[in-house]
Amino acid sequence: MAPTRGPRVKKGLLERLDSGEVVVGDGSFLLTLEKRGYVKAGLWTPEAVVEHPDAVRQLHMEFLRAGSDVMQTFTFSASEDNMGSQWEAVNTAACDLAREVADKGDALVAGGICQTSLYAHHKDEVRIKKLFRLQLEIFARKNVDFLIAEYFEHAVEAVWAVEVLKESGKPVAATMCIGPEGDMHGVTPGECAVKLVKAGASVVGVNCQFGPWTSLKTMSLMKEALQAAGLKAHFMVQSLGFHMPDCGKGGFLDLPEYPFVLEPRVATRWDIQKYAREAYNLGVRYIGGCCGFEPYHIRAIAEELAPERGFLPLASEKHGSWGSGLSTHTKPWIRARARREYWENLRPASGRPLCPSLSKPDA
Amino acid sequence: MAPTRGPRVKKGLLERLDSGEVVVGDGSFLLTLEKRGYVKAGLWTPEAVVEHPDAVRQLHMEFLRAGSDVMQTFTFSASEDNMGSQWEAVNTAACDLAREVADKGDALVAGGICQTSLYAHHKDEVRIKKLFRLQLEIFARKNVDFLIAEYFEHAVEAVWAVEVLKESGKPVAATMCIGPEGDMHGVTPGECAVKLVKAGASVVGVNCQFGPWTSLKTMSLMKEALQAAGLKAHFMVQSLGFHMPDCGKGGFLDLPEYPFVLEPRVATRWDIQKYAREAYNLGVRYIGGCCGFEPYHIRAIAEELAPERGFLPLASEKHGSWGSGLSTHTKPWIRARARREYWENLRPASGRPLCPSLSKPDA
Amino acid sequence: MAPTRGPRVKKGLLERLDSGEVVVGDGSFLLTLEKRGYVKAGLWTPEAVVEHPDAVRQLHMEFLRAGSDVMQTFTFSASEDNMGSQWEAVNTAACDLAREVADKGDALVAGGICQTSLYAHHKDEVRIKKLFRLQLEIFARKNVDFLIAEYFEHAVEAVWAVEVLKESGKPVAATMCIGPEGDMHGVTPGECAVKLVKAGASVVGVNCQFGPWTSLKTMSLMKEALQAAGLKAHFMVQSLGFHMPDCGKGGFLDLPEYPFVLEPRVATRWDIQKYAREAYNLGVRYIGGCCGFEPYHIRAIAEELAPERGFLPLASEKHGSWGSGLSTHTKPWIRARARREYWENLRPASGRPLCPSLSKPDA
Amino acid sequence: MAPTRGPRVKKGLLERLDSGEVVVGDGSFLLTLEKRGYVKAGLWTPEAVVEHPDAVRQLHMEFLRAGSDVMQTFTFSASEDNMGSQWEAVNTAACDLAREVADKGDALVAGGICQTSLYAHHKDEVRIKKLFRLQLEIFARKNVDFLIAEYFEHAVEAVWAVEVLKESGKPVAATMCIGPEGDMHGVTPGECAVKLVKAGASVVGVNCQFGPWTSLKTMSLMKEALQAAGLKAHFMVQSLGFHMPDCGKGGFLDLPEYPFVLEPRVATRWDIQKYAREAYNLGVRYIGGCCGFEPYHIRAIAEELAPERGFLPLASEKHGSWGSGLSTHTKPWIRARARREYWENLRPASGRPLCPSLSKPDA
Repeated sequence: MAPTRGPRVKKGLLERLDSGEVVVGDGSFLLTLEKRGYVKAGLWTPEAVVEHPDAVRQLHMEFLRAGSDVMQTFTFSASEDNMGSQWEAVNTAACDLAREVADKGDALVAGGICQTSLYAHHKDEVRIKKLFRLQLEIFARKNVDFLIAEYFEHAVEAVWAVEVLKESGKPVAATMCIGPEGDMHGVTPGECAVKLVKAGASVVGVNCQFGPWTSLKTMSLMKEALQAAGLKAHFMVQSLGFHMPDCGKGGFLDLPEYPFVLEPRVATRWDIQKYAREAYNLGVRYIGGCCGFEPYHIRAIAEELAPERGFLPLASEKHGSWGSGLSTHTKPWIRARARREYWENLRPASGRPLCPSLSKPDA
Repeated sequence: MAPTRGPRVKKGLLERLDSGEVVVGDGSFLLTLEKRGYVKAGLWTPEAVVEHPDAVRQLHMEFLRAGSDVMQTFTFSASEDNMGSQWEAVNTAACDLAREVADKGDALVAGGICQTSLYAHHKDEVRIKKLFRLQLEIFARKNVDFLIAEYFEHAVEAVWAVEVLKESGKPVAATMCIGPEGDMHGVTPGECAVKLVKAGASVVGVNCQFGPWTSLKTMSLMKEALQAAGLKAHFMVQSLGFHMPDCGKGGFLDLPEYPFVLEPRVATRWDIQKYAREAYNLGVRYIGGCCGFEPYHIRAIAEELAPERGFLPLASEKHGSWGSGLSTHTKPWIRARARREYWENLRPASGRPLCPSLSKPDA
Repeated sequence: MAPTRGPRVKKGLLERLDSGEVVVGDGSFLLTLEKRGYVKAGLWTPEAVVEHPDAVRQLHMEFLRAGSDVMQTFTFSASEDNMGSQWEAVNTAACDLAREVADKGDALVAGGICQTSLYAHHKDEVRIKKLFRLQLEIFARKNVDFLIAEYFEHAVEAVWAVEVLKESGKPVAATMCIGPEGDMHGVTPGECAVKLVKAGASVVGVNCQFGPWTSLKTMSLMKEALQAAGLKAHFMVQSLGFHMPDCGKGGFLDLPEYPFVLEPRVATRWDIQKYAREAYNLGVRYIGGCCGFEPYHIRAIAEELAPERGFLPLASEKHGSWGSGLSTHTKPWIRARARREYWENLRPASGRPLCPSLSKPDA
Repeated sequence: MAPTRGPRVKKGLLERLDSGEVVVGDGSFLLTLEKRGYVKAGLWTPEAVVEHPDAVRQLHMEFLRAGSDVMQTFTFSASEDNMGSQWEAVNTAACDLAREVADKGDALVAGGICQTSLYAHHKDEVRIKKLFRLQLEIFARKNVDFLIAEYFEHAVEAVWAVEVLKESGKPVAATMCIGPEGDMHGVTPGECAVKLVKAGASVVGVNCQFGPWTSLKTMSLMKEALQAAGLKAHFMVQSLGFHMPDCGKGGFLDLPEYPFVLEPRVATRWDIQKYAREAYNLGVRYIGGCCGFEPYHIRAIAEELAPERGFLPLASEKHGSWGSGLSTHTKPWIRARARREYWENLRPASGRPLCPSLSKPDA
């Protein structure tokens, strides 16, 4: 299989999904750039796009190279309520960076918005929609290819976001940051999916807050509900890149390790191959990641689904399938690791014998 | 404390160390760039400096920003025996990249060589020294500030490396990739240190293959032996950024998780603050990291030793000390994490209840 | 509080329960006597009552001393289908041993039957009831105080057992070995409880196959269903003395560690105090244990509920409450363990760093 | 192989050891009888021999049946300094119980003494030896077969004990409760062994305080030292029945779980078979256990070494070798467990995902 695919005229998101293609999303920006020194934990705002554009461009490049078909603008929390007067410059710069990198390959640009800080305090639809509209104006001016409403804890606010984004005439994907127990008002994943599709979302799913297996369970609940309601939509999953079986309803924020000692939970590339395969088998066709998804995790999605897609990502030129790069090692016991069964069945040690394997959520 | 220090005339490595300054090293290149998509596991060669200079430059920038006082040329395994005709271009480009970034701050450039692939097969001093000399000629032409001989499993070959590097007249640092049990021929850490100092190394220590606590134990053995021998040298430690209490004599290569499922072992920033403090207390003044040391780990060294050094690294502008960035979170139980005692005492879960905490080395 | 209570006329089971008393059950016979050398794993039959009556008597004595209000005849699997011609001698001897020890204190004797080996092969009500009736005849002749039908995986067979036992006119308690997912035919715990009460059981609940917390969850489902059905009954729980959060529907038999490496899962006395308290708070008043419940676990139930009952068991003369027996130790750090908070919050290490914390059931 | 051996004239301890026989020791009394309700933690005194002789007799019986060749008098801590005026009755009753059970088989009776409470406060050889002599007088009067000085933390006091016991003319075995780091005054295991042999001990080794693998390491140090010193002795090991790799110099007393939450650390029968085999391979011929060694652990020693000894213990009539008792189970996945490889390689889960695998000693 060739490690890349030739240039071609870009097809839109729905064209791709409608024709049955897999769309590989991108991965982690906030947590990854926090570790690289450009994002402040707690604030989690994307001013790096203006302060350190090289760092953001490089991360986009790594995801492109890893196989991402989407360059999502790094505009998480970049609404006026969070960033004050900086918001406009940040949204503009984020669009430019995403477009610059997307055009080095076959990727689409997605303008992204997320839940506001206002909803927790009041439920003022007019004010909240106005915030969404401000970001949307930049996305429209910069002509992004489609729009993503992501990281919503409340179905109500997510529906408002979809309603605003739909005004643009561009395709809208919507993901909530919920688990199988549903949103913070007790709306089930299935009900959330139905509401989002009825509001106009072409793609629905979940992102962030829960680990791969939990997120896929939530997806299956969404799928069942849409089927039961006779509704059609594409499915999208962008879970955490962390093992989080101990999350409660509130997701990873409530785990004692959040956000500074999540290291032991980071998924391996082989874990992500399983996640990609299970997502695919479930009918999900937009598969990416959220916090914790490094470029090599995105590559793992693209490699796992290479048989279906017919090509490998660029970054596979530096990656032997299932550890084959070890097959010439001088130590025979390391050479013996150059096979799929080895990595699929290995249960990795934490190296931390004084630590437990699960935590109790703080709330 | 101001989050940076003003420009000044650069002092050399020995000037810094002789005056009692702490020198913060840099971190992981091979494993980090493997995850970013630019290095192939198994080969572990640095052709990225010519193929993808932006990616390498960006990583140098992140370490500089995190507080590294040294930009080490990304020339690991870049000797002729490993890279064939590419070797010269790679060493040249690596020097240029390191210098370009170093001159954006107060950092020094260090030309680095490591053990050859030849020593395992024969012990031909002439041929091996010739390989070292080829790289040294580039380093001399590019006028690096000092030289590092690192990742040597055999004291004999390390001594040859030091002897060659000393020909340049520049300061030489030498680190072996050994643990408390010593080199592959049974030479103890103390004997290794004595041999390296006698060969002309001004700085001695260990890098790679073992975790932080094991490496510090090896350092203490080196220190004792030099004292007993009446020799003086500066100490340098650049351990793995992984928890590896289960390593045998052969280091992390022999652990079943190497190299693709080391994730659960990654050290936290708080672990690295302890490592930096213990290294400092032991008298080590050149403190950096090897595989697994991401930019935020280097920042943790610089932050832990900021009281001694009098300044914080640039990247601390995006990092609240001991989690203080969480002090304004809306959830009270997350605000409660904004304190040193919390993070110092937390024992993080692996999120992997089917996995053990330690492994048996394969050899 | 006095470490015992004076002799008195024995009240029957229902008198005790109807007046709100807590009835402390007994604990493990099969697994405990297997470890003492008198029962063969795999067979799990109680021929020890005739072969080694001293060993069985001693275990009864230990439970009496630990606070058990019930001496259950050691007649598990002692039906004719499992034991052939030995069945009659075994049932007779078991009754005599239980009575002998019960009369050294205030304990009642309960004749116990369990599911047959026949039900899995056919569903012949007549043949199965005949087996139950054979045992019941011995129990009637020996004048046990009440009857227990326990360890039933199928509600149908359990109902048959209750129907037979009711013929005696004695009170009948019935416990199934199911978890929250219900019986092997998909009958929920709530439906099981309703069927058993309607069949005539005065006490219903669960025993064996699942750990303390899972069993209590099953109990709460039974309680809800009886309330919803407007039925009244007393509740009884006799869970495993092992931590088993990883059990699937089939219970502990399906865990890879069954039956020979369950050691790391054994509950501590402090765990059992929590279990007793939670059971009590849930309204369960017949609280005992099954496999894995050693005498000191039963004592823990009796000690936890001593405030409600007004007396301590005899064996508490050899047990300081919450570790108080350590308060005079010569080492201060051991004296510091002589307090409730210490033991309640300690998370004990397994001493097995190469082992996981959970297993996957085999089926 | 027959599951027993016929009656014969009893050979003495040294006759057995000199002729190369394996002598199987007995197991845990204090911790086991604490769990059965007859010993108080903290005090750890053996008044049960007079208060509840049936309970003690039964435990002796279980060990005899499990294969113990020695019935050690339950006289731990039964010196006058610990028990006051009770001491004489206790020592006398303990001898009678041990003899009664020993004579039901081919077992020998060993009178046992241990370190005094005085040594920690003063080093008065005369007073301490007097205490030892009081117990010895009972042992002599009751004509025990040989003597054991066990659980000594200080070589000096152990030597005094051996010197006193030697006065009887009976064979003396001496075991210290030390690990590889040696006694509390810094005397190495090797030096301890040499001192004990020179004082007259015919058998030397270790008991208690450390797990099986640590104890065997200590034994190997003793063996080396005796060989180096040109001395001859038999070797004896009676380790804890717990996994304790995290013990510091002070042994299991210093672990936070001592003494009430050691459950997760209990060795399996298969672990003990390995221990017996390794002890045998090391040249140890007196192999038993201390705290945590239940009857089935002693049976595991006797079964592992049955090929060398030519017979199985009585209790093997209730134990299928390597799980063979499961071979007729109705569930095929349980039948699949009826083989040696399964149990040898299984790494058992703790069932406690919130708990670590190792602890830090308190001191």
